[in-house]
Amino acid sequence: MNWLNLDKLQTFQELKEVEKVDLKSVMAGENGAERVKNYSVKMAEGLTYNYAAKAVDDKILKVLQKMADEAELIGKYEELYNGAVINTGEKRLVLHQLCRGQLGRDVVADGVNKRDFYLEQQRKIKEFADKVHNGEIVNEKGEKFTTVVQIGIGGSDLGPRAMYIALENWARRNNLLSMEAKFVSNVDPDDASAVLNSVDASRTMFVLVSKSGTTLETLTNESFVKEVLKKEGLDPAKHMVAVTSETSPLAKNEGYLNAFFMDDYIGGRYSSSSAVGGCVLSLAFTPEVFADFLKGAHESDLLAKEKDIFKNAAMLDALIGLYERNVLDFGTTAVLPYSQALSRFPAHLQQLDMESNGKSVNRFGEEMNYVTGPVLFGEPGTNGQHSFYQLLHQGKTIVPMQFVGFKHSQLHNDLVIKGTTSQAKLNANVAAQIVGYACGKEDENPNKRFDGNRPSSIIIGDELTPSALGALLAHFENKVMFQGFLWNVNSFDQEGVQLGKVLANRVLAHDVDGALKAYSDLFEI
Amino acid sequence: MNWLNLDKLQTFQELKEVEKVDLKSVMAGENGAERVKNYSVKMAEGLTYNYAAKAVDDKILKVLQKMADEAELIGKYEELYNGAVINTGEKRLVLHQLCRGQLGRDVVADGVNKRDFYLEQQRKIKEFADKVHNGEIVNEKGEKFTTVVQIGIGGSDLGPRAMYIALENWARRNNLLSMEAKFVSNVDPDDASAVLNSVDASRTMFVLVSKSGTTLETLTNESFVKEVLKKEGLDPAKHMVAVTSETSPLAKNEGYLNAFFMDDYIGGRYSSSSAVGGCVLSLAFTPEVFADFLKGAHESDLLAKEKDIFKNAAMLDALIGLYERNVLDFGTTAVLPYSQALSRFPAHLQQLDMESNGKSVNRFGEEMNYVTGPVLFGEPGTNGQHSFYQLLHQGKTIVPMQFVGFKHSQLHNDLVIKGTTSQAKLNANVAAQIVGYACGKEDENPNKRFDGNRPSSIIIGDELTPSALGALLAHFENKVMFQGFLWNVNSFDQEGVQLGKVLANRVLAHDVDGALKAYSDLFEI
Repeated sequence: MNWLNLDKLQTFQELKEVEKVDLKSVMAGENGAERVKNYSVKMAEGLTYNYAAKAVDDKILKVLQKMADEAELIGKYEELYNGAVINTGEKRLVLHQLCRGQLGRDVVADGVNKRDFYLEQQRKIKEFADKVHNGEIVNEKGEKFTTVVQIGIGGSDLGPRAMYIALENWARRNNLLSMEAKFVSNVDPDDASAVLNSVDASRTMFVLVSKSGTTLETLTNESFVKEVLKKEGLDPAKHMVAVTSETSPLAKNEGYLNAFFMDDYIGGRYSSSSAVGGCVLSLAFTPEVFADFLKGAHESDLLAKEKDIFKNAAMLDALIGLYERNVLDFGTTAVLPYSQALSRFPAHLQQLDMESNGKSVNRFGEEMNYVTGPVLFGEPGTNGQHSFYQLLHQGKTIVPMQFVGFKHSQLHNDLVIKGTTSQAKLNANVAAQIVGYACGKEDENPNKRFDGNRPSSIIIGDELTPSALGALLAHFENKVMFQGFLWNVNSFDQEGVQLGKVLANRVLAHDVDGALKAYSDLFEI
Repeated sequence: MNWLNLDKLQTFQELKEVEKVDLKSVMAGENGAERVKNYSVKMAEGLTYNYAAKAVDDKILKVLQKMADEAELIGKYEELYNGAVINTGEKRLVLHQLCRGQLGRDVVADGVNKRDFYLEQQRKIKEFADKVHNGEIVNEKGEKFTTVVQIGIGGSDLGPRAMYIALENWARRNNLLSMEAKFVSNVDPDDASAVLNSVDASRTMFVLVSKSGTTLETLTNESFVKEVLKKEGLDPAKHMVAVTSETSPLAKNEGYLNAFFMDDYIGGRYSSSSAVGGCVLSLAFTPEVFADFLKGAHESDLLAKEKDIFKNAAMLDALIGLYERNVLDFGTTAVLPYSQALSRFPAHLQQLDMESNGKSVNRFGEEMNYVTGPVLFGEPGTNGQHSFYQLLHQGKTIVPMQFVGFKHSQLHNDLVIKGTTSQAKLNANVAAQIVGYACGKEDENPNKRFDGNRPSSIIIGDELTPSALGALLAHFENKVMFQGFLWNVNSFDQEGVQLGKVLANRVLAHDVDGALKAYSDLFEI
């Protein structure tokens, strides 16, 4: 593959020169209706990516296709899933897709067929979860476990937490909520204390997640939990499993009921489909629910192999995002799910996107002359409409948006009020927002004027099921991967989190001077 | 007052011309330690605003003081609290500060002394909450109410919810958690269903919050709740109070146990200190806890009257933010509380800031030639460190940051692990981040290099108590107000939310064509 910087691509120059689209005018009238019908790509699990309200047209799309080809996006993806060292900084393979299915050749690393390794962890987790659910594994008093608490931070928290929240109601309705799940992440002692205050520790299974077995926050919170268990006369070793690497101090450790393994080839933010998400989600729901989630993700991964942008929503989404960032110069992007179940999905995408592509050097360590990953934020709609949408509609800064919506609710419990259901009201609102943002509205009173030309896309699904959620997650993972290829960055390391760790340890060791000593003094550390 | 556009201020030209500060060099060595000690402003309730790690120096601060004077910030604040029509768009007074204390002259509107009106609502709420707590007001079976559910959206949700979460643990430790609070906001039917599934409706008091009594989401969710109550053989009128305006259909309505009033002079995002926050927080905690919260906010309001920027943290924070937005050209800002209790505080500030100052026309309806409010986002630390901080440290875009931290935890339940408490670890991390962002780090490997020069400030308090929370909230409200004065926008209306409402109603009435019809079809509305 040619790993070229974005500004070395001929098509990037071409893209800058293509005539811009006036979104407001192309979305007006029947032309707009046609766009909505045509500018649509089928995704996995019945999802659809609609980009009618993005500032692109056939000419721009043609250049985007050429760019995908010139940047060899599909070839690079192929290298990735066939086991090349794509994470150049840490010299590692990148294998999260392999948790959900095999896309290419067998990948052998450290003398092991990695697909087999991931399947083996899934099998072990299923066996364990089944035993917890059917009462073969019980607490000291022989009672079933009712609650699972994940202790982890970053990718060991945000993804699995967002996935749990996304499926909790669906599982409840389908009698698949086996255990309630809670999460402890922050080193703030109030976090662990509050969660422990809210559960019956004697009937709680704790899942400790740390790849290295050395994460400050996670080990601190583990000690917190163990202290509480001991105070209640309980044996921590009967209440805790570890998800860690095979070489970590947590592996093969008698302090845990069981250990499930992850490896260096799946970064934290990509680990929801590994044992990191698998253990807590299989316990909270069932192993079969987790398997469905993986199935949906795998369907997305397969579609991401398509060279044709009109058959590959993740790649098209990536290219449009790049156009908005590097040609139209928009620095921020908003993810706006019209689904309360996805309330923490934007926080997960924030990590996924900003940690992957918030980089200033390319994969060879060279400075680049163009901007990379945008700031990403979001809250569920309709809530956001009554909040920050004001700036998105009438502010000085244009923020491209990515909506998500579903035809049906998860709990199937709805009421007709004034002739329409709540779900219809919810979806009428997202439709209205897309058109309002794109087309704006004239008004004599400038304070009530909407300029329009604010681009958005939407992913629409039937219902947020485990497989649809997997497909949605993998869509964004693959989008971020393709954008990383375009920017020529390594999307799979995170050196930017290291400095803080080092300095914090120096503060705790009182090995500081200058400003850091002065701040420590302010906090009386 | 002279309501001038920012670019008409002489000091704005001056500000653009003052030499920029190289944060990295001024924060190095003992000079940095001196800055940390000196660049600090006392706030209310023992809080401190420290801006040592902002890219300002004495020369820039001098211009900022001149700008505060030239823009007549204090005079405009005085007009506001003395009852001028500051909300020019809607021709309304702006009186949220008056809920917490009187800052100037008596304010009479609609023939009523408004301070008396707000105090009367507080008195009525206290009387009601006391009766609920002591068992004078009970359910159909004579049982005490154990739970309160607020039904509201936007400002009727984000602020009160963030405040409740902020104080829940503090109240628990101090035996002041009278009732558990939950919140229903989204029109997504899964939101109301999930909350209703999680409470015992027979022992729940619902607080319906809608100023106009016509908010789509809120009335829909009210119907949802009433349906459930009826199904359980309960009388909705015995389980529900309204917080609304005196002229709304919800006032003096037999469908509610009681009604507490708000008025047009307090916008949703400023309403946490009105009956909108007062009712749910007095019920969840006690009326006295809410009074302490107001006391802290009033202390902040009083300090905001100071003309000297070194005695007025809100004004200084506003001016530095403006410098970053309009001179240094940073488009986004992050709020990063090192306190799990403040987990939803950024979402509230996101509304407060972006809805107030996300405007493109000035208070006279004229287009402006400069940018206004930034995009604001945030998550609690240390969680964010393992997520989007990567981009903040090493991304191509500089994002100014606002940290918040406390010397002590709320639950006072901490453990010494490896020689330090969790609270010390938490605070060592925030100190480390500030210095890491400002000073960066050289490295032979460019991938491990940190350029530094990433500005941040911090607000430090002793402990997050009700009064400290009030002071913190009012700080940001006043900061946003001062920035609105500087940008010459009306920070108190939100016309940008109207278009969506109108279009959504047309979708529901099937009165649409073009793109909107096509999107409705995709959703099968």
